[in-house]
Amino acid sequence: MFSVKMGEELIRVFQLGDEDDRVHIIILTADPAAPAFCAGVSIVPASSSILKAPQADIDKVINEHRDPGGQVAMAIYNNRKITIAAVNGHASGTGATALQLPFDFRVIWASAKVTFPFVRLGIVPDSTSTYLLTRLIGQSNAAYMLLSGDPQKPNAHYLASLYHQILPTQTEILPVAIEVAKNVAYGIGQVSYAYTKGLIHRSGASIEENHLLESRAIKIIGMSKDTVEGAQSFIERRRPKYTDTLSENASSWYPWWKPLDVKNPKSKL
Amino acid sequence: MFSVKMGEELIRVFQLGDEDDRVHIIILTADPAAPAFCAGVSIVPASSSILKAPQADIDKVINEHRDPGGQVAMAIYNNRKITIAAVNGHASGTGATALQLPFDFRVIWASAKVTFPFVRLGIVPDSTSTYLLTRLIGQSNAAYMLLSGDPQKPNAHYLASLYHQILPTQTEILPVAIEVAKNVAYGIGQVSYAYTKGLIHRSGASIEENHLLESRAIKIIGMSKDTVEGAQSFIERRRPKYTDTLSENASSWYPWWKPLDVKNPKSKL
Amino acid sequence: MFSVKMGEELIRVFQLGDEDDRVHIIILTADPAAPAFCAGVSIVPASSSILKAPQADIDKVINEHRDPGGQVAMAIYNNRKITIAAVNGHASGTGATALQLPFDFRVIWASAKVTFPFVRLGIVPDSTSTYLLTRLIGQSNAAYMLLSGDPQKPNAHYLASLYHQILPTQTEILPVAIEVAKNVAYGIGQVSYAYTKGLIHRSGASIEENHLLESRAIKIIGMSKDTVEGAQSFIERRRPKYTDTLSENASSWYPWWKPLDVKNPKSKL
Repeated sequence: MFSVKMGEELIRVFQLGDEDDRVHIIILTADPAAPAFCAGVSIVPASSSILKAPQADIDKVINEHRDPGGQVAMAIYNNRKITIAAVNGHASGTGATALQLPFDFRVIWASAKVTFPFVRLGIVPDSTSTYLLTRLIGQSNAAYMLLSGDPQKPNAHYLASLYHQILPTQTEILPVAIEVAKNVAYGIGQVSYAYTKGLIHRSGASIEENHLLESRAIKIIGMSKDTVEGAQSFIERRRPKYTDTLSENASSWYPWWKPLDVKNPKSKL
Repeated sequence: MFSVKMGEELIRVFQLGDEDDRVHIIILTADPAAPAFCAGVSIVPASSSILKAPQADIDKVINEHRDPGGQVAMAIYNNRKITIAAVNGHASGTGATALQLPFDFRVIWASAKVTFPFVRLGIVPDSTSTYLLTRLIGQSNAAYMLLSGDPQKPNAHYLASLYHQILPTQTEILPVAIEVAKNVAYGIGQVSYAYTKGLIHRSGASIEENHLLESRAIKIIGMSKDTVEGAQSFIERRRPKYTDTLSENASSWYPWWKPLDVKNPKSKL
Repeated sequence: MFSVKMGEELIRVFQLGDEDDRVHIIILTADPAAPAFCAGVSIVPASSSILKAPQADIDKVINEHRDPGGQVAMAIYNNRKITIAAVNGHASGTGATALQLPFDFRVIWASAKVTFPFVRLGIVPDSTSTYLLTRLIGQSNAAYMLLSGDPQKPNAHYLASLYHQILPTQTEILPVAIEVAKNVAYGIGQVSYAYTKGLIHRSGASIEENHLLESRAIKIIGMSKDTVEGAQSFIERRRPKYTDTLSENASSWYPWWKPLDVKNPKSKL
């Protein structure tokens, strides 16, 4: 089950993994003996005590609330390293949203049930899933999954483009995720990977704005030691040894976007 | 055929269905004996009389024109209930745009011809299809359909992700749509459904903005009677009985977006 | 290989093709005897001399750099005619980005290897691919291709929705592209096609804004000679003869968007 405490620990893990240059890849998986990859949050009847509070207090609670799943999702989405969700069991609620959608790559067990049950429980989707799922698999598929609450298997046509590998047995999920990690990480520069993630996630409002962003990124990265090593190793047909790190070589321009301050209770909505 | 009068009636139906708390689902289908689900608008040679008018009059006509198909599409897209298009025949023009794209769910006959014939007729697509189709199935598929004018079957790879069920016989379309409706509507809260549609359609310009929107929606809905009932029924393993209604329990924050006033002829373009 | 000189020639070709009313379709293909459709740019170790320059000079170089591939991509994407990429060989780097993504239609050889190798070379994607690929095939598929650098065949589920036809032999790519061109171009009005492309590429920030754009486009085009001919030919069941041209009949409203001036070194980022 997903809990606030687990969320805080995940945020800490992804922040540490982001800051530590020695970390190149983060894989999230579940204990294979667990009954599910993640079954969502524990469902308890909401307390109605807040409803008796003065309206100003209620408004304050509403304005200041920040969805814990959304905070986890942003910590993963904004992490600059290679992130992989190794979904080795059923996934529902936050287990289908925060623990899958913000990752770079998703590997899943073919028999996993994937459920976005929110509307069936009388609540709304969490973890920025209404933003991410729409962009990841298109609004037709995303609307089906979020508005029906229907459990589906990964191979269902609604979901298939969400997954990079769909595998028949639970036990192979983590080994294959590690294989994907090694394959992807093979000779990938830490800084060029982080810039590329940024360009995909914050791609600009038009093709022209994207061209300006890419042009600047290309030139900055093109002056790096890693670019020289990339070309040299390509010509010498050997595996590159990239040494640039995010803490030393990311340039002051990066990140070029200014995210909304989500902690400020007055942040414009 | 789609006519301006039919468009006005559809707008009225979807507005009434939106406002009346007793309405949970709206299904649109065609008379199964009709030659098509909808073959678009009647094609008549345009009158050229306007072309002889003074330029200021022509400009006024252009500025004040509002596409009837687009008005229908917005009435359906902005409807807060469960909407299903039961496409039991061929669909062309407005029959492929306004009468399909703005719905939450689409069920179609496998042998239906789906055509966006606009460029072949020397005109441009209608009914906000250039906005909706791109988002629903991705720009590569949408551009193919809109720029080629090519008739395609629902199973064609250009179109497949648009449809939630593709069925072999015309007569089963409406029964299956009713089945989908019941399955989806089974235990769905009216207010949480409307909020979820809003979050998908107006998901925010960034993950951070979406997080603020979702957080507020989660907290507002989380204080509702329906959330208590959702949790209670889940724990008791029984079917929920949601009672919150849009007219009484939607909160003053909803809708949180301010749509452009499309009726104002001076609305910024 | 893609070179700056080739890029300049391509930009010139697409600009000439855009301006000349006699041009209806532009197909790009490669010499079938070549070892690849396009293997990207020549990889040479970057010179490090710039790194010894004063910081102000380095900043100027960075601010003024404009990615040549992005300039080609924009020239193709903004071209108002029918554009087709006939990919009759392997495609890597700029051969997978600028020479494929900005086209209206893509026909490819089934055995072509398609590679976005940027992160493996320690550099970042070019040619506005971080904007286009995400929109064309969805962010889940686009992120896989751009962040893994993994070579894939066109039929791979990551890539399939990018291609309008995938064909078994190299030699049939150009003939089929010409067939597609004729099929698409059959009775398509030059002005209505250009407007439709514009509505897809610049579809507005909301359904309401799109409705205003479509409404205006519909009315302007609806007053054209081509619309009369479209309706007349439809009624008479004959092939239309469209005569409106972009240089004479596009209306002063078109293009309705104001692209960022990408040449200005001070353009806001």
